[in-house]
Amino acid sequence: MTRPFLSDNAAPVHPKVWEALLAADASDAPYDGDALSQRLDEAFSALFAREVAVLWAATGTAANCLALATLVPPHGGVICHREAHIEVDEGGAPGFYLHGAKLLLAEGEGAKLTPESIAAVIDPIRDDVHQVQPHAISVTQASEYGRCYRPEELAEITTRARARKLALHMDGARFANAAAFLGCSPAEAAGDVDALSFGCIKNGGMSAEAIVFFDPALADVARYRRKRAGHLQSKGRYLAAQLHAMLADDMWLSNARAANAAAAEIAAACGGRLMHPVEANELFVRLSPTEREILREQEFGFYDWGPDAARFVTAWNTREEDALALAQAIAGL
Amino acid sequence: MTRPFLSDNAAPVHPKVWEALLAADASDAPYDGDALSQRLDEAFSALFAREVAVLWAATGTAANCLALATLVPPHGGVICHREAHIEVDEGGAPGFYLHGAKLLLAEGEGAKLTPESIAAVIDPIRDDVHQVQPHAISVTQASEYGRCYRPEELAEITTRARARKLALHMDGARFANAAAFLGCSPAEAAGDVDALSFGCIKNGGMSAEAIVFFDPALADVARYRRKRAGHLQSKGRYLAAQLHAMLADDMWLSNARAANAAAAEIAAACGGRLMHPVEANELFVRLSPTEREILREQEFGFYDWGPDAARFVTAWNTREEDALALAQAIAGL
Amino acid sequence: MTRPFLSDNAAPVHPKVWEALLAADASDAPYDGDALSQRLDEAFSALFAREVAVLWAATGTAANCLALATLVPPHGGVICHREAHIEVDEGGAPGFYLHGAKLLLAEGEGAKLTPESIAAVIDPIRDDVHQVQPHAISVTQASEYGRCYRPEELAEITTRARARKLALHMDGARFANAAAFLGCSPAEAAGDVDALSFGCIKNGGMSAEAIVFFDPALADVARYRRKRAGHLQSKGRYLAAQLHAMLADDMWLSNARAANAAAAEIAAACGGRLMHPVEANELFVRLSPTEREILREQEFGFYDWGPDAARFVTAWNTREEDALALAQAIAGL
Amino acid sequence: MTRPFLSDNAAPVHPKVWEALLAADASDAPYDGDALSQRLDEAFSALFAREVAVLWAATGTAANCLALATLVPPHGGVICHREAHIEVDEGGAPGFYLHGAKLLLAEGEGAKLTPESIAAVIDPIRDDVHQVQPHAISVTQASEYGRCYRPEELAEITTRARARKLALHMDGARFANAAAFLGCSPAEAAGDVDALSFGCIKNGGMSAEAIVFFDPALADVARYRRKRAGHLQSKGRYLAAQLHAMLADDMWLSNARAANAAAAEIAAACGGRLMHPVEANELFVRLSPTEREILREQEFGFYDWGPDAARFVTAWNTREEDALALAQAIAGL
Repeated sequence: MTRPFLSDNAAPVHPKVWEALLAADASDAPYDGDALSQRLDEAFSALFAREVAVLWAATGTAANCLALATLVPPHGGVICHREAHIEVDEGGAPGFYLHGAKLLLAEGEGAKLTPESIAAVIDPIRDDVHQVQPHAISVTQASEYGRCYRPEELAEITTRARARKLALHMDGARFANAAAFLGCSPAEAAGDVDALSFGCIKNGGMSAEAIVFFDPALADVARYRRKRAGHLQSKGRYLAAQLHAMLADDMWLSNARAANAAAAEIAAACGGRLMHPVEANELFVRLSPTEREILREQEFGFYDWGPDAARFVTAWNTREEDALALAQAIAGL
Repeated sequence: MTRPFLSDNAAPVHPKVWEALLAADASDAPYDGDALSQRLDEAFSALFAREVAVLWAATGTAANCLALATLVPPHGGVICHREAHIEVDEGGAPGFYLHGAKLLLAEGEGAKLTPESIAAVIDPIRDDVHQVQPHAISVTQASEYGRCYRPEELAEITTRARARKLALHMDGARFANAAAFLGCSPAEAAGDVDALSFGCIKNGGMSAEAIVFFDPALADVARYRRKRAGHLQSKGRYLAAQLHAMLADDMWLSNARAANAAAAEIAAACGGRLMHPVEANELFVRLSPTEREILREQEFGFYDWGPDAARFVTAWNTREEDALALAQAIAGL
Repeated sequence: MTRPFLSDNAAPVHPKVWEALLAADASDAPYDGDALSQRLDEAFSALFAREVAVLWAATGTAANCLALATLVPPHGGVICHREAHIEVDEGGAPGFYLHGAKLLLAEGEGAKLTPESIAAVIDPIRDDVHQVQPHAISVTQASEYGRCYRPEELAEITTRARARKLALHMDGARFANAAAFLGCSPAEAAGDVDALSFGCIKNGGMSAEAIVFFDPALADVARYRRKRAGHLQSKGRYLAAQLHAMLADDMWLSNARAANAAAAEIAAACGGRLMHPVEANELFVRLSPTEREILREQEFGFYDWGPDAARFVTAWNTREEDALALAQAIAGL
Repeated sequence: MTRPFLSDNAAPVHPKVWEALLAADASDAPYDGDALSQRLDEAFSALFAREVAVLWAATGTAANCLALATLVPPHGGVICHREAHIEVDEGGAPGFYLHGAKLLLAEGEGAKLTPESIAAVIDPIRDDVHQVQPHAISVTQASEYGRCYRPEELAEITTRARARKLALHMDGARFANAAAFLGCSPAEAAGDVDALSFGCIKNGGMSAEAIVFFDPALADVARYRRKRAGHLQSKGRYLAAQLHAMLADDMWLSNARAANAAAAEIAAACGGRLMHPVEANELFVRLSPTEREILREQEFGFYDWGPDAARFVTAWNTREEDALALAQAIAGL
């Protein structure tokens, strides 16, 4: 496979991240006592223009679950989309980290929740001990189908959540792509959530995601949970370094813009084949088995998406020529 | 602190590991589908001269707990030393990963278990449902006090364990230092355990430990558990690369030998101050507060060990001159 | 409320059960060491005409969850109907007892699973660590809508389960009503499941359900789990006594027949109002708010079932005159 | 065995409790919606002369664990005596209910904690994420050796606990015996704990213990936890009835006084054989194997307590003549 559109998950590490890793090589305090880890709160507080507390973690799954575990008791429930990553692709990790708390599944176009789809889950729940009560809502920015919540959509969900005393979590594995698409500030793209998994690995990092707590008291609990989950790495400076590199000069945004631009270029060639509007770096394209075969013969790598479609993902390192080639190949089918 | 004897946990990454990391940078399959991850079984099978299955994990805590979770049901117990890392320093991670299974604490000189100390725990346990029944034994090679189990000691414990149908786990965060000290084969240093946490991070790695399953069926369960614990990193090739680098040309052994040699040099100067024979890369040295102050003024870094002692740890990168200086400084007290 | 059709859950205790309780009053060995508890295996083995091992538990929720916990690891999944009691009405107990294992929800008319509805859940699950794999199927006999699995339906599901190496659990909170309806042997009504929650409380008991393990080795694990869940009562003879009383002279069947007969009498008056065929002791009847109000004015007790229906439940003690009165009242609407 | 001193756990049910059970037989709302369950708060608030919220549970293990689960997060620890029931005899139930939280074991004469023994556990714990932090203290009134905390001892422990922001739980499986011995008010015997397991089963009940929450908000959480643990029985009125019967006319106290008096009578005959002062209804008596054999030949039932002692337990129904006979038999050895 020479033209990779399989996943941003497997892309190489950005040169600036390598630089930061190598620069972190001198000995420093173990765990998260090093200077780089200690400066994360400051760096992200600047990004979000408010005081936040930040922990690194090695995967998005860990980031999501450590965040949720601070928001939901073992006997509670989390409302999320039926196709959310925490429901579909994390191997039951929320059940593990939340000690059996339940995911309460909601509908919504483009894998996005709406106030109505949330209400459709909550409203039938009897307020008694026989039914698991909702304690939090988890949204994904950008969604599993690469769709972005507009700030006003987040505001509506937040209002609904606050009225029901529900906490709010955002899975931001592709938060950068969403922010790049929305063109708003990071704070606006995050809305008023309590905790955000801020993804870096898909965006040029090696092994570090950030868990951003907008209520620093939650971070204090999460630190114990992180250790207890075996996620407190002893040489934490190598994780912190990646995050700092991503924030420096807004590389997280420029990398995401590059990925989004490549996706947009391909999207323009897909016309009616698109199953979802392309707002981030994922394309879901109707393609027959024969058409997919033709593309694969041209060395394009991608996943099948059911019997009649394919998923293409661009990344920070997608080459202009590859995006163009794919666009032309699809146009020529 | 310019002369670091604080912890091997915080040492830099070995140049050969950096090389391996950079060499792994090309895109490959995500998670553990990459070529390097796929070759780990083979590499470790060669090392142990028998078929093993190997998973990487980001921390020793995760490695220990993922291994134990395959050996012990939630209602069971694990016999370990009262001062074992899993009991004292993992933030309750075994309770989390084993769903409330219990650590059953045994005594033993130098933080090593003996058949007698194990029996002293097991024998009073009534064989009824009111008491937690033992399902596994966990030994640490080298122990928390840098003491090594001789192959015949492991054999005795194994015999005892098998007679009681107990599984055996080895925490090998410093397995390399033990193997280097014992001068025996890796297989002999591991004995007949079911699962071994093979440490690399303290020995020149960045963020990868190996969980070695001597029964490959256990690895199949552990793979689900690893994902569920958020430890299946998306760019797994960067972890596998570290492990391969450690095994290449037996660097794991040469690094450990260097650390052990530095420790031995310092030990020779400590005389009656040593609280434990020095068999690996840790020294526990009786030193008054004043004496510790004197050493710190000379820029030696180390942890206090209670009111009247200090712990010094050497690492793969301990400079000959620093070890010599510390030896002289202690001798001169 | 003088004419109770609210729930069989709240019915009084049958006089024969009272007799048995009082007869058990002499001191005996604590927990389940008493003679009555010790004879349960024998009594239920006779009932099912094969060797079984039986534990008592205080609730159906505990019985279901203790059974499932022996069949499914924490990282696994249980296929059940979207409206199954374990999903809807047990306050998340399966998540607690199974340590976060997941309920995988299937469709099916009358809250009954079918081979097709099970396949519709299983087939899309990728066989990789990112998705929770099914380990068991749980069926409810009679279902949440009072529908009964015919022996041949169970056989089909069993065949499907065995082919996928899935264990089988049956929630038999109303097993007696199902067996009475089916007119077959208890063994046929249970099919080839691995564990059955055999309900007694709704059928004239006070506080005892039976967990029937068709593989006695599972019972050995369940005994530890039961203690660990705080369900090993110290005066277990009072639970065992209830179960023996139910089995004596097939009172479990005669009680269920009485309840079913009362339900059938009412059903005959409901005509097209019935939402589900009445096969056990529950009736789901389309009734407008006004109609429900009229019935309540006549002192009939029942639950609303959504905006336009009501649920009526008969029990072992439903008086002929009350059933008749309800039938006439509905017919007269 | 005609003279039972084996355990109060297996004693028959008190006639007044039978009366109450039978009186509760009419149908009422299921679960804890019945009138008797609804009046528990009031009854216990009167007993403790302050507002409390009360839940019933079927066992002491469930009562202890449901209480502790409201006080301690999964990543926390509970300080208890090394010989506490929750540590030694509950089959790991705290690990299950508290999701892996840890019991931190303290010493203390007579299985009673002291401020000093608590400090000896807490003080060495480093305030970092690598070590499990204490969140609660659990005391047992009367202790495993039948020893009672005086109000001033409880006050000292409470002061210590509050200073460290630790919650306080009391296992009162034999609270009645302690209160009877102390001669103080129930409130004084309970001290200022947050939650109390108020035992009834050993004291003439059948299957009901009370969990008394001195902070009603905790009870709200416990109600969800109880359902989730399968401990919300459907005919809860039969549990509530037992508790009301125990409180009526202070039967809980008179039953305990009877048991204590029998124990005191036997104790008077034991002289230097007593291993612990007898303050409640348990006697730990040094007796050689031969002496125990002699007693058993006289049809006294009891447990061995190690190789050279025996445990005798009196109960509400211990006959004067049996106590006298045992006293004489021991005196005559």
